[in-house]
Amino acid sequence: MQALVLEQKGVLSLREIDLPLNVGPDDVKIAIHTVGVCGSDVHYYTHGAIGPYVLREPMVLGHEAAGTIVEIGSNVRNLAVGDRVCMEPGVPDLSSRASKLGLYNVDPDVRFWATPPIHGILTPYAVHPAAFTYKLPDNVSFAEGAMVEPFAIGMQAAARARIAPGDVAAVIGCGPIGIMVALAALAGGCSRVFISDFSAEKLAIAGRYPGIVPVNIADQSFADVVQRETAGWGADLVFEASGSAKAFNGIFNLVRPGGAVVLVGLPVEPVAFDVPGAISKEVRIETVFRYANIFDRALALIASGKVDLTPLITGTFDFKDSIKAFDRAVAANPSDVKLQILMNNGEI
Amino acid sequence: MQALVLEQKGVLSLREIDLPLNVGPDDVKIAIHTVGVCGSDVHYYTHGAIGPYVLREPMVLGHEAAGTIVEIGSNVRNLAVGDRVCMEPGVPDLSSRASKLGLYNVDPDVRFWATPPIHGILTPYAVHPAAFTYKLPDNVSFAEGAMVEPFAIGMQAAARARIAPGDVAAVIGCGPIGIMVALAALAGGCSRVFISDFSAEKLAIAGRYPGIVPVNIADQSFADVVQRETAGWGADLVFEASGSAKAFNGIFNLVRPGGAVVLVGLPVEPVAFDVPGAISKEVRIETVFRYANIFDRALALIASGKVDLTPLITGTFDFKDSIKAFDRAVAANPSDVKLQILMNNGEI
Amino acid sequence: MQALVLEQKGVLSLREIDLPLNVGPDDVKIAIHTVGVCGSDVHYYTHGAIGPYVLREPMVLGHEAAGTIVEIGSNVRNLAVGDRVCMEPGVPDLSSRASKLGLYNVDPDVRFWATPPIHGILTPYAVHPAAFTYKLPDNVSFAEGAMVEPFAIGMQAAARARIAPGDVAAVIGCGPIGIMVALAALAGGCSRVFISDFSAEKLAIAGRYPGIVPVNIADQSFADVVQRETAGWGADLVFEASGSAKAFNGIFNLVRPGGAVVLVGLPVEPVAFDVPGAISKEVRIETVFRYANIFDRALALIASGKVDLTPLITGTFDFKDSIKAFDRAVAANPSDVKLQILMNNGEI
Amino acid sequence: MQALVLEQKGVLSLREIDLPLNVGPDDVKIAIHTVGVCGSDVHYYTHGAIGPYVLREPMVLGHEAAGTIVEIGSNVRNLAVGDRVCMEPGVPDLSSRASKLGLYNVDPDVRFWATPPIHGILTPYAVHPAAFTYKLPDNVSFAEGAMVEPFAIGMQAAARARIAPGDVAAVIGCGPIGIMVALAALAGGCSRVFISDFSAEKLAIAGRYPGIVPVNIADQSFADVVQRETAGWGADLVFEASGSAKAFNGIFNLVRPGGAVVLVGLPVEPVAFDVPGAISKEVRIETVFRYANIFDRALALIASGKVDLTPLITGTFDFKDSIKAFDRAVAANPSDVKLQILMNNGEI
Repeated sequence: MQALVLEQKGVLSLREIDLPLNVGPDDVKIAIHTVGVCGSDVHYYTHGAIGPYVLREPMVLGHEAAGTIVEIGSNVRNLAVGDRVCMEPGVPDLSSRASKLGLYNVDPDVRFWATPPIHGILTPYAVHPAAFTYKLPDNVSFAEGAMVEPFAIGMQAAARARIAPGDVAAVIGCGPIGIMVALAALAGGCSRVFISDFSAEKLAIAGRYPGIVPVNIADQSFADVVQRETAGWGADLVFEASGSAKAFNGIFNLVRPGGAVVLVGLPVEPVAFDVPGAISKEVRIETVFRYANIFDRALALIASGKVDLTPLITGTFDFKDSIKAFDRAVAANPSDVKLQILMNNGEI
Repeated sequence: MQALVLEQKGVLSLREIDLPLNVGPDDVKIAIHTVGVCGSDVHYYTHGAIGPYVLREPMVLGHEAAGTIVEIGSNVRNLAVGDRVCMEPGVPDLSSRASKLGLYNVDPDVRFWATPPIHGILTPYAVHPAAFTYKLPDNVSFAEGAMVEPFAIGMQAAARARIAPGDVAAVIGCGPIGIMVALAALAGGCSRVFISDFSAEKLAIAGRYPGIVPVNIADQSFADVVQRETAGWGADLVFEASGSAKAFNGIFNLVRPGGAVVLVGLPVEPVAFDVPGAISKEVRIETVFRYANIFDRALALIASGKVDLTPLITGTFDFKDSIKAFDRAVAANPSDVKLQILMNNGEI
Repeated sequence: MQALVLEQKGVLSLREIDLPLNVGPDDVKIAIHTVGVCGSDVHYYTHGAIGPYVLREPMVLGHEAAGTIVEIGSNVRNLAVGDRVCMEPGVPDLSSRASKLGLYNVDPDVRFWATPPIHGILTPYAVHPAAFTYKLPDNVSFAEGAMVEPFAIGMQAAARARIAPGDVAAVIGCGPIGIMVALAALAGGCSRVFISDFSAEKLAIAGRYPGIVPVNIADQSFADVVQRETAGWGADLVFEASGSAKAFNGIFNLVRPGGAVVLVGLPVEPVAFDVPGAISKEVRIETVFRYANIFDRALALIASGKVDLTPLITGTFDFKDSIKAFDRAVAANPSDVKLQILMNNGEI
Repeated sequence: MQALVLEQKGVLSLREIDLPLNVGPDDVKIAIHTVGVCGSDVHYYTHGAIGPYVLREPMVLGHEAAGTIVEIGSNVRNLAVGDRVCMEPGVPDLSSRASKLGLYNVDPDVRFWATPPIHGILTPYAVHPAAFTYKLPDNVSFAEGAMVEPFAIGMQAAARARIAPGDVAAVIGCGPIGIMVALAALAGGCSRVFISDFSAEKLAIAGRYPGIVPVNIADQSFADVVQRETAGWGADLVFEASGSAKAFNGIFNLVRPGGAVVLVGLPVEPVAFDVPGAISKEVRIETVFRYANIFDRALALIASGKVDLTPLITGTFDFKDSIKAFDRAVAANPSDVKLQILMNNGEI
């Protein structure tokens, strides 16, 4: 089967590779239609590793995908051949202690697409457990279906935040994840979401959504804006989505007494953390690792029209041009949010 | 001062009455601009009592109000003369055990406008603690300000429900409170809200809001619709807003395993409650008594444009016609949601 | 294999029966040592059914069990032959929507020992998934291990209650489940637990535990006692463990404003529920269905010495006398809390 | 009135000082009986400041106190002359936004005894709001009453942790606060509490309580012990009570996936915080600032016998010897947990 293979750091090839496609009793086989290019895919391409996950063998990339079911296992009841679906890329051991608690995302044995040594799905077909495959509502396109995975991270952040209706949120960082977090927070009950960045282009994309207020921190202090707009009280919820260690300087100036800070971004080095600053406001801090029990909720919000992700798809490539797609992603054009690859060339 | 006085059951008069207007150090004095007519006001008019609260002396009606501050007490810092405001009608003992816990709505000593023997505010001026007076954002009208009180009940229901982003809700009853609950649930994070009633006219009003799905239970079973639309799983959250004892028949067929039922309506008689039905799904049941710490959140959602209450204001009367307003409210026209009375005739 | 078989309503026999004992890759095989007699076992014996679960074929009874592992499946890593264990009797579909959420107890497909048509374990050997088999700490006896299942119901009630440290609890009903709830509430953070019943003998058993205060409602009103002991505030948490419809009369007089009522008992008929009584205190109501993710916590509290269940084991029978054990359970001696059956006659 | 006055850094005197003692309508006047010496009192003595709170004028020390009411204000209903009481030393503005939410501890306007410029209560009489004065149950001594304040910090930590019954906890630091946290966690529902320190003497004091397991980190890694004792899963809850920046090294190795870390100690400098370590387990982090709505819960646990604080009182001084008490506290004898000062010399 053809696949986009990361041979080693910096070397991509579109070539034949042998991938197992046997359909177990609880599995479905999917003809992949659309795959999004994720920052983590790009990072494996440019760095060959993310933290403890190191590329040692050639690996197929891609984990944000939608497609059509072409075969189902003997036990599968709630999906059928022909169903349009999207897939949750991490598969845990469902009998683990974490999974039994509903926290399957933190099961140490989870197998996640395109995380070494597990292959991703930039290839025409994939086999996946039915339990982690979600039917797309009729009014949700394949392109939107392939956006569910990155949006799910924003949704997990919104869920962990425990938004109270009408909360004011501040999101640090207006990259793809920051925007996903802002949209999820807004759909999830916030009244307004302030979002900060140095890039006017990125902020302009976020600012087109009513309810999201872009703040360019090249010009002004984020804390000053948030304090002014909340009459000196602070944001109920702060989401750190930049992954920058600098974001932790004064982060507790953004939040109200008794508020929460949600950590989504992954700074490489330990950050300088102001314990008295957190304690004096008795701040709650939540952290976000991927997602669990979120795909159906994300789809519900997309299908209902509360969340429109299509403006964030800023480029679409044919599978044969997927290396071009990755090289454009490496270029990190600030006006790009999400690039997608079409697997089927309209054939399915 | 002129006021709309409920002299006794069934007898309203617009007349002079002596009301205390001394402004304490923590108080503000407000020129009332707009007052909504609430079902409870109407119920005192038609029945002379609500449960244990019995009219024994003439009482001024009205507790949904917005106006302009004309005087402030010596300690008041965060409000100023000229501020446009709305007021929370219940004033607790802030040093009570319940208030210290943040549950000031269930303080047994709360004094609530137009609940015997406390006078309401259908009168040109009122004095109120600054702590329970909320500034209207510039883009929120007096008419909307006077809608904050009934919307706050919906918001309290949404808050108590602990909505997770993307939840599906089912609201029983499409009266004014049912609609408020539906709007609050939607703004508070739900993806879709199903709402049931026997009245096509009431459902038509709710159905104009995107995301609210009206279900006429004269034609079909609410549980059947909800089960079908959720693939047999059930609604994450069910809100009982009809106050009808019949709503409890089969109520747990609406909700998913592990979901929640939120009780807002007040049936007069004990209802027949199916304990095994609740237990077999391990349902959580929440109840809603007025609201606490909600007015600022309600205002935030109105000001941000996420919630538009203006289509629900279906009639406006001058103060001099306020008895007419009450008589129209007694008529209970199904196309009426909220009637309002203008106090100032444009004079303030 | 020998087993205690409920042939039909009212007819027990100790006889040979053919039970599958093949050990799958994720399973363990256990030599059963001790089995408790549960009220539900007794109810199937006397009534032939519990609600929708009707005995249609002969069924082995028993679901409260401890024993020793004699064989393990090829995938099992955290258990070994020779381990002393207790078993969670319900096995869900781990890939179901409820299980993925961590709510595997409310998975509609759960298979539960001694619930028709699933056989129980009053028989020398059983095969069970390793994921629902829990190692006994060295200082926990088989007798205590077989008490984990009923204690787990009390623990689930305590978990659902969301006890805040120092809460005062009131438990209605001093049967085996009421006592389990009281012990779990006390170990789970309550300062004092009041427990009510009409039976002085039952109350005497509970009252031997420091921190549990028995209240004989033949002599005095439970609400009066609780209100007096809490200076008129009410209990933070009320647990309904009697299963009597009468318990719902005035139940909200027991609870404080903003408190919670936890429903454990299963009244057969719908109960008369006072919605305004619940709403005026904004009470939260939780329900308890079996348990999920509780066995390890129950074992931790037993092993640490915080909970001593051994005084509750009021009779022990050899397997050959198990029909006698059931007939004594049917007699419902008020001084009996838990009867147990020893399977192994000292042979293992 | 005589008082123990901190004249300036390092200079204590026992002398006359003029303190206001007028009893407002919501106040009570208390004859102080026992006052504990707190680490913060000692720190003002030795350093003249704690963070932003700087001693600029002579200030009476002391904020852990119990005594007897000698006069009550005209509005006070639930306390009477002669009541034995303890007092919550922080008095917020009850009408503030934080207080209305029940978070009065984080009200920026809170006035706290012995925090510059507010005088403490090492003096024979004090006037305090009745709302922050708590009656001692008959079986709670003045000495225990004066321990409620430090225990309340442990209780607040236990409350913020949201203990599930049977949780395993790990407490970093076995000073007075660490011990208070451990006792509160145990009484609040934990099955076992591991506590770490370098001081064998301090650990010996904690280890005398059943359920608390001391771990000397001079000899072994705390994470190794916790992981071994939890079968590699980790503690459900970790409490940081050392205030040492070093405690943050590897802190997430102590906690289970999906567990929580509660920050109680106040490191002076920013700490190095491992964001990926927290995120990969999706850890929740709570912080603790003093306490709110805790004194009654702390008293309930002491009165019920679940918590015995008397072994922690390691020295008692007469008021006339209070400078000696402070100098002994400065010496920081590892076998000392709490020193107390008796105000009344047996005269009340």
